[in-house]
Amino acid sequence: MTTKYSWINGEFIPSDEAKIHVSDLAIQRGYGIFDYFKIIENQPVFLDDYLDRFYRSAKELFIPVKYERDELKHIIYGIIEKNDLPYSGMRFELTGGYSKDAYTISEPNFIIIQQALKLQDTIDKTGLKIKTFAHQRQLPQVKTIDYLMAIKTLSSGEYKDVDDILYYNEHSITECPRANFFIVTKDKVLKTAKDQILSGITRKHIIQLAKPLMPVEIGPISIQEVYEAEEAFISSTTKNIMPISHIDDKVIGNGQCGSVTDMLFTLLQEHIKHQTPSHTE
Amino acid sequence: MTTKYSWINGEFIPSDEAKIHVSDLAIQRGYGIFDYFKIIENQPVFLDDYLDRFYRSAKELFIPVKYERDELKHIIYGIIEKNDLPYSGMRFELTGGYSKDAYTISEPNFIIIQQALKLQDTIDKTGLKIKTFAHQRQLPQVKTIDYLMAIKTLSSGEYKDVDDILYYNEHSITECPRANFFIVTKDKVLKTAKDQILSGITRKHIIQLAKPLMPVEIGPISIQEVYEAEEAFISSTTKNIMPISHIDDKVIGNGQCGSVTDMLFTLLQEHIKHQTPSHTE
Repeated sequence: MTTKYSWINGEFIPSDEAKIHVSDLAIQRGYGIFDYFKIIENQPVFLDDYLDRFYRSAKELFIPVKYERDELKHIIYGIIEKNDLPYSGMRFELTGGYSKDAYTISEPNFIIIQQALKLQDTIDKTGLKIKTFAHQRQLPQVKTIDYLMAIKTLSSGEYKDVDDILYYNEHSITECPRANFFIVTKDKVLKTAKDQILSGITRKHIIQLAKPLMPVEIGPISIQEVYEAEEAFISSTTKNIMPISHIDDKVIGNGQCGSVTDMLFTLLQEHIKHQTPSHTE
Repeated sequence: MTTKYSWINGEFIPSDEAKIHVSDLAIQRGYGIFDYFKIIENQPVFLDDYLDRFYRSAKELFIPVKYERDELKHIIYGIIEKNDLPYSGMRFELTGGYSKDAYTISEPNFIIIQQALKLQDTIDKTGLKIKTFAHQRQLPQVKTIDYLMAIKTLSSGEYKDVDDILYYNEHSITECPRANFFIVTKDKVLKTAKDQILSGITRKHIIQLAKPLMPVEIGPISIQEVYEAEEAFISSTTKNIMPISHIDDKVIGNGQCGSVTDMLFTLLQEHIKHQTPSHTE
């Protein structure tokens, strides 16, 4: 395999050697933001959406971004060209930087890594088993690097047998640690939480695709509604759409991938294909 | 200046070159724990207390510690000898490690760094100005690397003019991001929060020193009680005890360092001195 490169603060570095100093605020204080998009046929998918969120996250955490959007796009396309990983994911992170007092935000470290990614062409109809967990993420709208609670919980004995956890707070079911959450009610209404969640890019496109076809409600969802749903699925950049068969000890619908979930997966696949140049006219 | 060394996974590395790979879970997911103790005359202060907490934190986050306590002490004394930084702080961190899927805990990275630290011999009587902030840290009893909310808040315009923030939740004033919090009431009762805080080592020793001398209450403290306190101070490994003069727009007591705060500082200083060999019989 030819060497693949990561990019740190303007320099290409063989990915195996991509390191940062231990005084960085991400290592010392968990302080950093990131984003992650997929690349299909060497073309980024929904890049502008991801860049919008990236700049927003950086602003929220007072981390300066040295590069204007056009410069950043130029950097991203440069990495794509250099690595030639036609089907891949690109992760770009901005940390609090090398802080002298291990506390004050300094000149950030900007790290971009690209890794091969195998995407499913067809929906995985084996539904996921998930378990609810009472927790509200801090700064939910900001894509921070904080996954403490998720990794701790999924490493504990009690959650080892499930595929994922589903957060809820006092008001609503919210999201999974790395995915948004949807239900389809018995009346064929598509529902997803509105507040205290990360605004997923895949979620956004699913909502846009669904709106002309069915009622879409964006607002609080109770656990009871989830248990009684006809279908449930999660969405994320890497997973696109994945059906859920079990939540806690309840079977969702008939325990199979539902027809609305299946249809939305197909629509989303088509929509993604039309973003990439080989499919545009 | 002679080269000082950091220690990573069993190797001494010149501190300037102490780096870890960007795939580490601390960098990608903010997943790690640490602890920090001070060294006086080349002797660690309260080392067993810090090691107790370190092993507890690691266990809570399911990060395996490769070294038994005696081995770890041996490593720590080895670093102290090599660096000869008689007045310093030592930070030891255990991360989630180089994770292939950027999510699952792997073989942890163990990083120890030592840096010169100037400790105050006398109490700094200029009280701190602090401001309350509604937030409950996640996993408060675990010394994780998560300082997202603190660094974000202190970087925002609204909190730029204060020395620190003071967290409160629906039940009580809790703590500062890097320090425990105490008040002395008008009746000369020493009070500090009990739940949802980090069990500070300095806090523990202050409580032990105070108990024979005055009533000590460990339990919920309302914001109103704080405003009406005769004295207030914070405690931490690096600060020992520092008086607080202002909280929000209120002056605490007469706005000076109070007599109980002053006395506890002196007692704590003596207590620390007696931990170091040159002062033991």
